[in-house]
Amino acid sequence: MADAVLFEFLHTEMVAELWARDPDPGSGGKKKSLSVLEGLGFRVGQALGERLPRETLAFREELDALKFLCKDLWAAMFQKHMDGLRTNHQGTYVLQDNSFPLLITMGSGSQYLEEAPKFLAFTCGLLCGALHTLGFQSLVTASVAALPACKSLGSPQV
Amino acid sequence: MADAVLFEFLHTEMVAELWARDPDPGSGGKKKSLSVLEGLGFRVGQALGERLPRETLAFREELDALKFLCKDLWAAMFQKHMDGLRTNHQGTYVLQDNSFPLLITMGSGSQYLEEAPKFLAFTCGLLCGALHTLGFQSLVTASVAALPACKSLGSPQV
Repeated sequence: MADAVLFEFLHTEMVAELWARDPDPGSGGKKKSLSVLEGLGFRVGQALGERLPRETLAFREELDALKFLCKDLWAAMFQKHMDGLRTNHQGTYVLQDNSFPLLITMGSGSQYLEEAPKFLAFTCGLLCGALHTLGFQSLVTASVAALPACKSLGSPQV
Repeated sequence: MADAVLFEFLHTEMVAELWARDPDPGSGGKKKSLSVLEGLGFRVGQALGERLPRETLAFREELDALKFLCKDLWAAMFQKHMDGLRTNHQGTYVLQDNSFPLLITMGSGSQYLEEAPKFLAFTCGLLCGALHTLGFQSLVTASVAALPACKSLGSPQV
């Protein structure tokens, strides 16, 4: 019935609540709300990472860890795989999802593009937290060119 | 892997975040945070309710709606059924879960009992929101005598 969407609904409401609560509606307030969402995501990603099977935690290669996120973690979160994973072989990875579930409920017009970052911050933090548990420090950012597709840029460093 | 716990982890972090953000640490602030969580739960419950199959929405009897919550909704949320449903046949229902997943991560000592309400508010709101979509106005409260068991008291009114 509704199990797969429970997380998505809660995520949507949480974003709305944090946004509405922010006493500073300017860009400073937005940045703070985004970093709160990232922090929440990071802790959830860490907690998920700690439940991984032991052999998963022994990834030596960045690429294996990234493949794991794109396949297993994405399947657990969104019941599908990431659509693309590319790398420049210098420690930067581009993860592409052509139909990101946390953006699907938004309208797809370009006028909504500026609203997109708040629906991406939690997941950026989550990827970063999961990588942290796997033994990689990383920077993860996200960009949207056309809704509901999104790209995550990850730069893990051991 | 981690799909069933994703919602639980997000819920835990959201409760912690809302609690930490509250500028008023006294009982007034607590009440406000609880009602924020209830409101979030209500909207998620409504949204879940709107995804129900059409025939489910045609419940005429309160008891059928309550049975649906205890069985189908609980299974979708927590992969199990509620442990008990009792009624006084005068519009009050007691729903019992002997091992409520959102309380399991807490310690089970009685010293944690006073922390329990913040982990119940979202779900009370959610039950209320789902009942609302099913056509019943209700009051839902929760109580805990021994962790991690909890009782919800629902009084639906058409």
